[in-house]
Amino acid sequence: MWSVKVVGLGVVALSLSLELLVRFLRRLRPGRILNEVLFFPSDLACVEHLFSPSSPRSCLCSLPHGVETSFSRLLRHILSATSSLDLCVFAFSNMDLCRAILALHSKGVIIRVVTDKDYAAITGSQIGILRKSGICVRCGVGSVYMHHKFVVVDHRLLVTGSLNWTLTAVQSNMENILITEEPQLVQPFIKEFHRLWVHSDPARYLHSSDQKPAQSELRREL
Amino acid sequence: MWSVKVVGLGVVALSLSLELLVRFLRRLRPGRILNEVLFFPSDLACVEHLFSPSSPRSCLCSLPHGVETSFSRLLRHILSATSSLDLCVFAFSNMDLCRAILALHSKGVIIRVVTDKDYAAITGSQIGILRKSGICVRCGVGSVYMHHKFVVVDHRLLVTGSLNWTLTAVQSNMENILITEEPQLVQPFIKEFHRLWVHSDPARYLHSSDQKPAQSELRREL
Repeated sequence: MWSVKVVGLGVVALSLSLELLVRFLRRLRPGRILNEVLFFPSDLACVEHLFSPSSPRSCLCSLPHGVETSFSRLLRHILSATSSLDLCVFAFSNMDLCRAILALHSKGVIIRVVTDKDYAAITGSQIGILRKSGICVRCGVGSVYMHHKFVVVDHRLLVTGSLNWTLTAVQSNMENILITEEPQLVQPFIKEFHRLWVHSDPARYLHSSDQKPAQSELRREL
Repeated sequence: MWSVKVVGLGVVALSLSLELLVRFLRRLRPGRILNEVLFFPSDLACVEHLFSPSSPRSCLCSLPHGVETSFSRLLRHILSATSSLDLCVFAFSNMDLCRAILALHSKGVIIRVVTDKDYAAITGSQIGILRKSGICVRCGVGSVYMHHKFVVVDHRLLVTGSLNWTLTAVQSNMENILITEEPQLVQPFIKEFHRLWVHSDPARYLHSSDQKPAQSELRREL
């Protein structure tokens, strides 16, 4: 009778220990889902070290160095891409973000960009520079705005929010972005990007008037 | 020797069963975190039943009835508020969303709105209607855009994305919203709303020129 009690207690103790161990390991594991929120305007700081991690102290500019800001966090997430980057953004005129995309492209990361056809053509847009470097860019079809501002990194990490990829959005406006690896949130964006990518394939509209910019529609809606 | 083996196997089996049971119960529990993504433009459908749930078949309009769309899902989440709704939106001209906010206000839900000062004054904006009904609205300060598009329902549910609260955004543009109860994502937005709410208190700027609309700044940046 006594030995049955000991075995019973042993079983309970071992089960509880195992459960606690599983929970502890789950907290420790490096693959824990990332969830992060960043707000803008971002503080100003030098981001040169993100582009040249081997020589972090080489920049002599007058901006603060070694400071983590909302913008440097965003750049870090973009530059973490190792295989693919699917970008869907309304306005893209930020030169640091353009430099990040070009750096990834030169490392062999597969870049796809969907953007708004009217805003791709305005002064300061970086879309032409991306195209000239060989990056595949497609424009939203029809007279409506392609108003998304999201990017999916390595089919794993989603960055989305109110922030256009412009200097004013980063340095002046009140904006937000949300960064997550939660599959329930990332997967629908991967699927939507694929849908938009196929839908905006110019080969589908070679004989259509859909691709002609409707100037009268410019700035109709934010 | 044989009994030791039996006890050992029993211990392993029981531990595994407990772990599986814990995982099963975790999936079943009603408090499972909501994560949802909606894309726009939304299909057109009647949303009258969401405002009058007691008489769902009373509407005779020509729109499709009984159809769930991205917009009806958004409305459902907004109308689920029971205690508070903190809205931070750049452009607000959608009359159905205004009606939802007024319905919540009349039920006693505490509504707070932060919006962009320039867009609050344009034709079609619903901000004046909210103010006239007694809802407290504050405008972003300075000459920069208050470009957020998020709402926190009952300090629990976050709705955020690229979508302004306008008819064009809902029915024409390519847009997204993300709905989540994940505390790591919701809490920073609650904190940021509080910061913006305090920062845009007009009592702080009674003797300042900050609140004067800068017409020249209009439509500077999307």
